[in-house]
Amino acid sequence: MADPGTTGEFALIDWIRRQEPERPVDSWTRVGIGDDCAILAVGEGTGAGCDLLITTDMLMDGRHFHLEQGGPEAVGFKAMGVNLSDIAAMAGIPRAAVVAVALPRANAVEIAHGLHAGMRALADRFAVDLVGGDTNAWDGPLVITVTVLGQATVRGAVRRSGARPGDVILVTGALGGSLAAGRHLKPEPRIAEALAIHRAADIHAMIDLSDGLSSDLGHILAESGGLGAVLDAVAIPIHPDAHEQTRRDGVSALEHALHDGEDFELCLTVAPEAAERLLAAHPAPLYRIGEVTDAAGVFLRSPDGHTTPVEPRGFDHLRAGNER
Amino acid sequence: MADPGTTGEFALIDWIRRQEPERPVDSWTRVGIGDDCAILAVGEGTGAGCDLLITTDMLMDGRHFHLEQGGPEAVGFKAMGVNLSDIAAMAGIPRAAVVAVALPRANAVEIAHGLHAGMRALADRFAVDLVGGDTNAWDGPLVITVTVLGQATVRGAVRRSGARPGDVILVTGALGGSLAAGRHLKPEPRIAEALAIHRAADIHAMIDLSDGLSSDLGHILAESGGLGAVLDAVAIPIHPDAHEQTRRDGVSALEHALHDGEDFELCLTVAPEAAERLLAAHPAPLYRIGEVTDAAGVFLRSPDGHTTPVEPRGFDHLRAGNER
Repeated sequence: MADPGTTGEFALIDWIRRQEPERPVDSWTRVGIGDDCAILAVGEGTGAGCDLLITTDMLMDGRHFHLEQGGPEAVGFKAMGVNLSDIAAMAGIPRAAVVAVALPRANAVEIAHGLHAGMRALADRFAVDLVGGDTNAWDGPLVITVTVLGQATVRGAVRRSGARPGDVILVTGALGGSLAAGRHLKPEPRIAEALAIHRAADIHAMIDLSDGLSSDLGHILAESGGLGAVLDAVAIPIHPDAHEQTRRDGVSALEHALHDGEDFELCLTVAPEAAERLLAAHPAPLYRIGEVTDAAGVFLRSPDGHTTPVEPRGFDHLRAGNER
Repeated sequence: MADPGTTGEFALIDWIRRQEPERPVDSWTRVGIGDDCAILAVGEGTGAGCDLLITTDMLMDGRHFHLEQGGPEAVGFKAMGVNLSDIAAMAGIPRAAVVAVALPRANAVEIAHGLHAGMRALADRFAVDLVGGDTNAWDGPLVITVTVLGQATVRGAVRRSGARPGDVILVTGALGGSLAAGRHLKPEPRIAEALAIHRAADIHAMIDLSDGLSSDLGHILAESGGLGAVLDAVAIPIHPDAHEQTRRDGVSALEHALHDGEDFELCLTVAPEAAERLLAAHPAPLYRIGEVTDAAGVFLRSPDGHTTPVEPRGFDHLRAGNER
């Protein structure tokens, strides 16, 4: 490929966004491509409006999971979980899901039963109805696409684009090394946490950490008008799995916490007063990791006040070769 | 596999249907698994109800298309078209779509652009917003999942389950041989036709012909409480492609019209008076092919009044090996 800046995943998504024609006046679309979910004002125009959230994710064997190792139930769990995590990122309530699968022909029915059990486990916890699907078999590897519909609360859906200079940046849990112990297969969608935080404070911007903190925080900053951030090196909560990963590859645990993906924690920004209130009331686990700045660029601040730039290592699905 | 009756696609879908737990009282779900679309009463409980339709379809290279032969634009067109056809089958209005893709790594961006152009062509015609997606690349074949949201009209969504004994069975176009000339890649979603028919008459039951007339009509009859049908052999509109297919394989053109899939015409049932009115007013192309009977079983009636049973050859995605 030529210039990675014009041919990678994010350039492609940008290109697709730019192709969208002007929407008809009665369009449902309030937010289209480019956030964790799209936001549709369903029934608008009929006087019966309702803010609907929709998100879709496809997982492929050998890329997002290894069927041989984890079995189909783990795949179903992850496929449902990553979508629920996107609903959480908007502070939404999941309601219904549809599922499409390409099943390896040899064990199609057995795999389907396992996938279903894994999806159902999370669907039961979050009261999600499985309302439809498409079942196929082939000689290729397992592929599953889950699409989840959710509902914004009366406080409205939280977008990536609302961060403001001076905002405090918070995350809901420890980061890094999700591949080390298979945690990337068991996303814990932070639905209840997001709703509790959203009730307690005005969340300016939020995203779920699927591609890695440096990359996902970068999306918030870019979508909020080209802002920057300073992160406190000692404040970033590091997951024990990140240390385990360090023992294997020698890369520092902090680096893993900054750049690894698939933690599925939430990263959010709130006004300083709101942050204080949240950290005192702790409606959910919350870690203060830094603040939003006017000037673009993400920097890491050491305890001595010295700052160094953090290169966002965006996980790019069109280029990366490792399992995700 | 053991008994095909308990291990095929339809048995699996049935099994999944039976696993669904009792729904919470505030569930959106009005119709879940088992029709062309699910029906969700979005915003119910808030007093802001709206009947939402959702459908999803996954297409895989080598199975539903051949990327090498048709190129990515044809794939995008088909992926959007088969979903719009499901919206048509409920007499719904398509509104928004999300797309997930597994792109072959070598030509990922080029293929994505082609897919987008194909989807956009149909999305433009039917005013569908592309509101989100998920972009992946891998070393496997192209897989695409499109999920479409639609809206029921004020007359309500048409289901498969409303056929009544004595109903006239109609189809919107000629059938058979869709593989012969590649017509299966160019579904013409009968959105406008379905809406026009629904305005002119009360449609009791409807389905789009994706698996083949004998199989899809069988779904209407089964879902309507185990009814049957008599089809007039000479009344079934046979597509020129079915004759072409006959020249290739020696199977009669009528057999192709009865059992081939992917015509993407609509099959509907209406009361006899409504059928007369429709056939006179012709709001859309309509062919009267038979009537619904009390007794189960589908029969073919020759001009001399002799009837022979039609075996539904349900296209089963878990078993079949041919391209679809």
